[in-house]
Amino acid sequence: MTEALRIGIAGLGTVGAALFSAITARHTMLTQICGREIRIVAVSARDRGRDRGIDLSGVTWFDDPVELARSGEIDVLVELMGGDSDPALSTVRTALGRGVHVVTANKALLARHGVDLATIAEEHGVLLNFEAAVAGGIPVIKAMRESLTGNSISRVYGILNGTCNYILTRMQRENMGFADCLAEAQRLGYAEADPAFDIEGNDTAHKLAILTSLAFGTKIACDEVYIEGITNITIDDIHAADELGYRIKLLGVAQRTETGIEQRVHPTMVPKDSMIAQVDGVTNAVTIEADILGELMLSGPGAGGDATASAVLGDIADIAKSRPGHQHGPALGRPAASLEPYRQAEMQSHQGGYFISLRVEDRTGVFASIATEMAKNGISLESIVQRGQPAAARSGQTVILVTHATTEASVRNAVDGIRGEGYLAGAPQVIRIERTAAG
Amino acid sequence: MTEALRIGIAGLGTVGAALFSAITARHTMLTQICGREIRIVAVSARDRGRDRGIDLSGVTWFDDPVELARSGEIDVLVELMGGDSDPALSTVRTALGRGVHVVTANKALLARHGVDLATIAEEHGVLLNFEAAVAGGIPVIKAMRESLTGNSISRVYGILNGTCNYILTRMQRENMGFADCLAEAQRLGYAEADPAFDIEGNDTAHKLAILTSLAFGTKIACDEVYIEGITNITIDDIHAADELGYRIKLLGVAQRTETGIEQRVHPTMVPKDSMIAQVDGVTNAVTIEADILGELMLSGPGAGGDATASAVLGDIADIAKSRPGHQHGPALGRPAASLEPYRQAEMQSHQGGYFISLRVEDRTGVFASIATEMAKNGISLESIVQRGQPAAARSGQTVILVTHATTEASVRNAVDGIRGEGYLAGAPQVIRIERTAAG
Repeated sequence: MTEALRIGIAGLGTVGAALFSAITARHTMLTQICGREIRIVAVSARDRGRDRGIDLSGVTWFDDPVELARSGEIDVLVELMGGDSDPALSTVRTALGRGVHVVTANKALLARHGVDLATIAEEHGVLLNFEAAVAGGIPVIKAMRESLTGNSISRVYGILNGTCNYILTRMQRENMGFADCLAEAQRLGYAEADPAFDIEGNDTAHKLAILTSLAFGTKIACDEVYIEGITNITIDDIHAADELGYRIKLLGVAQRTETGIEQRVHPTMVPKDSMIAQVDGVTNAVTIEADILGELMLSGPGAGGDATASAVLGDIADIAKSRPGHQHGPALGRPAASLEPYRQAEMQSHQGGYFISLRVEDRTGVFASIATEMAKNGISLESIVQRGQPAAARSGQTVILVTHATTEASVRNAVDGIRGEGYLAGAPQVIRIERTAAG
Repeated sequence: MTEALRIGIAGLGTVGAALFSAITARHTMLTQICGREIRIVAVSARDRGRDRGIDLSGVTWFDDPVELARSGEIDVLVELMGGDSDPALSTVRTALGRGVHVVTANKALLARHGVDLATIAEEHGVLLNFEAAVAGGIPVIKAMRESLTGNSISRVYGILNGTCNYILTRMQRENMGFADCLAEAQRLGYAEADPAFDIEGNDTAHKLAILTSLAFGTKIACDEVYIEGITNITIDDIHAADELGYRIKLLGVAQRTETGIEQRVHPTMVPKDSMIAQVDGVTNAVTIEADILGELMLSGPGAGGDATASAVLGDIADIAKSRPGHQHGPALGRPAASLEPYRQAEMQSHQGGYFISLRVEDRTGVFASIATEMAKNGISLESIVQRGQPAAARSGQTVILVTHATTEASVRNAVDGIRGEGYLAGAPQVIRIERTAAG
């Protein structure tokens, strides 16, 4: 039997501790399946004294993860510290540069430095695996990097943030407002004390940027993602969507268009009977549209210590099953040097249907004015709903428009035109509608 | 760059021709991604003269696929002939025995001879890949064999036959009878001229037997699958299911129980709002319940030349990315010699909810008699619906029962007891209810 695969874990939070337990408890099973022992030999974390419910007596402790990476004691460095800068960056760079395989769950690090790190990995003939970085336990990286080899991908989209999906699901099911649902998510540990990174869409954008690179063979461009979070979604929007046959989900969408590649993260209306509309709570899902295969959807737990540890373990097992010095396949699906520059499609040229909700004053001619602005911008309407306010205290009424396919520029022009007419009683709400796989 | 990977294709039907075209058309892309050329050097098929829309001028033709396997000209044999005996069996055996990797889409062959073939592959240090054999283009084999390494699986279930799912979907949506939907499926090419193998559940059973082995580390036991097809499902059943909040799907289910492993294929009631209930038409889906990861669902095209070719291409690419003589991982997820015997759970001890539809004569006391038989067998009822017949021509009425969790033995005893009372006006319909992931 081949020698044991020596693992060093940098970062012993929830995921690190779950991984440590899993490898320890399933030692025999893993040895049998991988054809060699997987042995944790060293760890690094901030606080040596903390009780994590795991027995660290047999492993070497490093205060400094970079020291762990350059110790020469390990074959694989598992980076679970998080963050797109040091110590994670130096630790991963040091490991790869010394011919040590790296497994990481760190989406921020990959979104910022993925191409550089993939280049270093290739130069040193080692693997850089990161299944856990996108959609937690769902094997979407493996599907795109391996299973879909040879396919051209036209679009990839998904629910990539469990916090947002939990909040939107609760709002819809329990008829609760955004703030209450966020507070509940925080109580249950589904949202951070500072939830901005999740609810403003940045976490989704990081994951989407990685998927975009894998889908289209382009360099990762996480600063060129159009981002809208869910903080402006109201219970009224949820109700209106429901009445029109839609659910609202925070989607990340990467799509090839004639003018470039769209990367966008925004609240999205999806038909109630579509597969992705059924993905509720903290569950994640990704759909990939590929020209040979067709449409593939994967859904499962997008976060949590165990689900993430499972993905990390799969990555480690892949390294254990390969033979030393024989990596199989570059980190980003093709050689880093061959990745093309990312060519951004302008958001203004995005095409699709739109949901537009306008609070307007009770005034003669408002309806005609709205319809005229739409027509002036070449927007044809699928439906118009005019409703009185649910709360008697509010004045005016709400006009809801659903457009046929049009462009972002047309919608923005039309809404600006309407705003200029002076009868709006509140900020207009605009939510994009995404064509999705029918159920 | 490493030398070209030389491919021989045995079988040039729809899938073979699609694969040939894909590899030819994407030659440059594949070379870049795999780090070596993938080159089709030889083919074998029954009829050399047939026009398949592909240019065979540059490749060696073999009339006999076994000759192709032993020619020494190829590194990978792609078996696309189908069938669980010769020539497919001899061809694959010959290839593996000569140190040639094999990629196959042949579920019948694997269901019957998978363990033997895996053993030969291991002995000769070559890969046996078969992603396309189960659920077509969906990467479920890779997910189970690689991504879930280290997990214990408790249940795997899915829609594994597109023909059956197409028929059931049409029945439900168009209010059409079974025979009409089957005829339509045949017209559209979704069902064979002789559809028995699909609609009687045998195809699903073959695929399930392979998944069972991967899930539980047991030998493949395709003759120990409990099988009921969909031929007895009526439009009345579909309506009754709909009214009770269910859809009827042909599921393959493999589940670990206290007495052994259940393998069962039967029409199944799943809640309308569950993910799997949304999987319509020829689409397939598989859900895996794993102890570390949680619940993972994959859905996509389960058949068709292109989708199958995509899965085959992914398998070939995996071989191309590995280095000669360095296989990574045994065919059935663990060494063939370590696969445990399959221990069958008796179908009689299956536990779950049941839908029971009884056509009964109009007679006093029938309702009480049915309730008494249920109670005698310890079956508690979730709901009872009594309905007049939709067609005036029929006499009597229909009583529909939905049970709480009980055992197969209890239900069969109760139905036998009812049958003995002499008031049934037709064969009873019994459909199992499966607990599935909520939407």
